[in-house]
Amino acid sequence: MPDQLLSTADQSMLDLAVQEAGKSLQEKGIPVGAALAHDGALLASGHNERIQSGDPIAHGEMSCLRNAGRRPSYRDTTLYTTLSPCPMCTGAILLFQIPRVVIGECETYAGDIGFLRSRGVEVLLAGDERCVSMMREFQRRHAEAWSEDIGGR
Amino acid sequence: MPDQLLSTADQSMLDLAVQEAGKSLQEKGIPVGAALAHDGALLASGHNERIQSGDPIAHGEMSCLRNAGRRPSYRDTTLYTTLSPCPMCTGAILLFQIPRVVIGECETYAGDIGFLRSRGVEVLLAGDERCVSMMREFQRRHAEAWSEDIGGR
Repeated sequence: MPDQLLSTADQSMLDLAVQEAGKSLQEKGIPVGAALAHDGALLASGHNERIQSGDPIAHGEMSCLRNAGRRPSYRDTTLYTTLSPCPMCTGAILLFQIPRVVIGECETYAGDIGFLRSRGVEVLLAGDERCVSMMREFQRRHAEAWSEDIGGR
Repeated sequence: MPDQLLSTADQSMLDLAVQEAGKSLQEKGIPVGAALAHDGALLASGHNERIQSGDPIAHGEMSCLRNAGRRPSYRDTTLYTTLSPCPMCTGAILLFQIPRVVIGECETYAGDIGFLRSRGVEVLLAGDERCVSMMREFQRRHAEAWSEDIGGR
């Protein structure tokens, strides 16, 4: 899947998601971050909190959606995430009918971008090396915590 | 889809999920409850907290999984839920590889039980009238809150 050039607006929102991932790493957590924007304005950001809060559902995208609070509609929103969404976060995107998702990278975890697209979600893939290197380093150092975060076995 | 007779063990866990739904209703919340059991022993229960906590990701199943805390594996667990899972909760079931789901009812919200089954999840559908009546009453009285909970528009 070729990487896509982002607009300045998309890039600055993805940068916020990357900052969230870095914040999680500083807190000794899993370095996945996310941001939600509406018509180009930031609504909320968040990061994975499995380790920090002992909360297994607090993936980066989920924490971001929680931080955004209740909304009657997600029309015209874009979700930015440093890592390709897992099945839970994919399901949340579909439930809330978020029409557009910008993904930092899908090298360290593939997710199922084809499934999102097949359901009508516009997906941009940035191929962001900052996201890749944070995740690779975490996966190398904390293989068990990472495995647990994506369902274990 | 025909309703299935539950074993005594499954019925008592589903009863706990129904109690959680009732607790949410008492709190003026959305009456969906869930329980997670491992080898027949209760791990955690929970209920929808969108209204109570202003948390859009806190569906019944998600609150239950959060309350269960971190687990290295969900092998041999069963998730009990009063209502057919939405795409987000379906995704969480797949992410955590929960092998078995007992559903109270799918009349007031269909979900996609066929999709769960196609991914190898064993699904039992109880056709529980208590679950149906709580949800019908809530949907009638609070149509907007219900619409918001399942993605709005």
